[in-house]
Amino acid sequence: MTDLQPSIERLVLIGIGLIGGSLARALKRVKAVDQVIGVARSRTSGDLALDLGVIDSFQSDAGEAVRGASVVVVATPLRSFPGLFQAIAENLPGDALITDVGSVKQYVIDAARRHLPGHLDRFVPGHPIAGTERSGIGASFAELFEQRHVVLTPLPENSDAAVRAISDMWNATGADVINMDPAYHDQILAATSHLPHVIAYSLVRCLAEHPQRDAMFEFAAGGFYDFTRIASSDPVMWRDICMTNREPILAAIDEFKSRLDDIIGAVKEDDGELLRQYFTDAKRARDSGLDGKKKK
Amino acid sequence: MTDLQPSIERLVLIGIGLIGGSLARALKRVKAVDQVIGVARSRTSGDLALDLGVIDSFQSDAGEAVRGASVVVVATPLRSFPGLFQAIAENLPGDALITDVGSVKQYVIDAARRHLPGHLDRFVPGHPIAGTERSGIGASFAELFEQRHVVLTPLPENSDAAVRAISDMWNATGADVINMDPAYHDQILAATSHLPHVIAYSLVRCLAEHPQRDAMFEFAAGGFYDFTRIASSDPVMWRDICMTNREPILAAIDEFKSRLDDIIGAVKEDDGELLRQYFTDAKRARDSGLDGKKKK
Repeated sequence: MTDLQPSIERLVLIGIGLIGGSLARALKRVKAVDQVIGVARSRTSGDLALDLGVIDSFQSDAGEAVRGASVVVVATPLRSFPGLFQAIAENLPGDALITDVGSVKQYVIDAARRHLPGHLDRFVPGHPIAGTERSGIGASFAELFEQRHVVLTPLPENSDAAVRAISDMWNATGADVINMDPAYHDQILAATSHLPHVIAYSLVRCLAEHPQRDAMFEFAAGGFYDFTRIASSDPVMWRDICMTNREPILAAIDEFKSRLDDIIGAVKEDDGELLRQYFTDAKRARDSGLDGKKKK
Repeated sequence: MTDLQPSIERLVLIGIGLIGGSLARALKRVKAVDQVIGVARSRTSGDLALDLGVIDSFQSDAGEAVRGASVVVVATPLRSFPGLFQAIAENLPGDALITDVGSVKQYVIDAARRHLPGHLDRFVPGHPIAGTERSGIGASFAELFEQRHVVLTPLPENSDAAVRAISDMWNATGADVINMDPAYHDQILAATSHLPHVIAYSLVRCLAEHPQRDAMFEFAAGGFYDFTRIASSDPVMWRDICMTNREPILAAIDEFKSRLDDIIGAVKEDDGELLRQYFTDAKRARDSGLDGKKKK
């Protein structure tokens, strides 16, 4: 396998949190990278990343950091992308590859078209569908992407070599790489990931704002803990996802509210047969749809 | 500890699923029961329960089974309670204790008042707040109630001795017993347990009925699996919960929809500060509210 590994000379990682840190760890583990330059606004995460050996050097200025880069990976909250793209556009080497790990793809592509027009042949947007409810460099681990999907949404402008190189990078982490249309990606993720997070946040706020708040948390049943685990995810990351994938998320919430209204209607009508049917269909879909799938 | 254990001579278990089976196992483990008579409509579960040693004998007729009972535990879906109470009223010994494990308490109390008027001093309603998404006797295990809450909602008619005996029975399983007002119980459980289940069923149906159904399940992210685990729970049990705790559940769904509308509003208004605030509040409430709590 060794000679099939990509060899990235100088990886510039803009954003050293859970995803960025795990990517650096995974690539270092298989010796697919020589040098990782971490970029973050906070010196504290930089020092921690250095101490943990996840990065080899630290820079606070993205525009300076990308000089001499072989590959640039943007792994910050989505709404920082336009500013970062502007900041790196001038110094980004003409042969450097660039990718990102953003959970929304159309927004990222629009920003790249606006601010990185000279680099579109080498900008391959990506999204590893992996994560935990923890955030920050301290939560990163090399195995995060193993047997997980990484979606790439290549641009028509991309060179084959650029797409192949970014694909190889993710394969080296143990991930399974898939190409997809960006609008389709955003629609699927709105329903399978963004909607569940919006629901989890809303449910926890429901209980937290209840007059019997303490009893609510005290008597919360087992399923509730799992259910709200994702409400511990990073608020800034999720704010940015909601704001950059607006239409697909609003459509998914709307669809969900209709399904909720089905249940309200059946309860109000005292229609036990309909309720049993809804619950049986959901159980069957869930049991079969997820059967044998890897769970993280 | 041995002489503090309750000693139940003849336990009649109406319903031998996850909860009933786990109760029998837990009591047998600490030798707090001599004989367990299982009652179920299906001979198949009866045979399995006998094979597993969870029950010592099997009866299909609840009315016959309760003759000579020391303690009767009703552990079937809620809407079967009125019929079962009618069926056992005549043969239930005048000194037998009776309790249940139903997830809704006011409905059960109303049914008992109607159909067991001669036994109200010894009918102590209960609800173990424990369970898994699996159901049936095959999923039962003796440790299910350890360090979990069991809520009792004693009636004004209950004798102290009856409440104490049912409390002792649950303590013997390792549970932590708490007395509560039934209406308060139903309101708390509507928000912490019934609402999350309704949401999980609705979310899974959303994805299952989507035109891109296969992709939805294929790309469902990690959090989604946890989130929908509870949608694998028993549909009949949940139909009955929805139909017997109608008003508190409808109120909880309504409240949840308002919180969801808060997010919709903020997304539509492009109000990032408000979204960040909602998500931060939820994260903080979830992290602190559940901190150090036992998870199952």
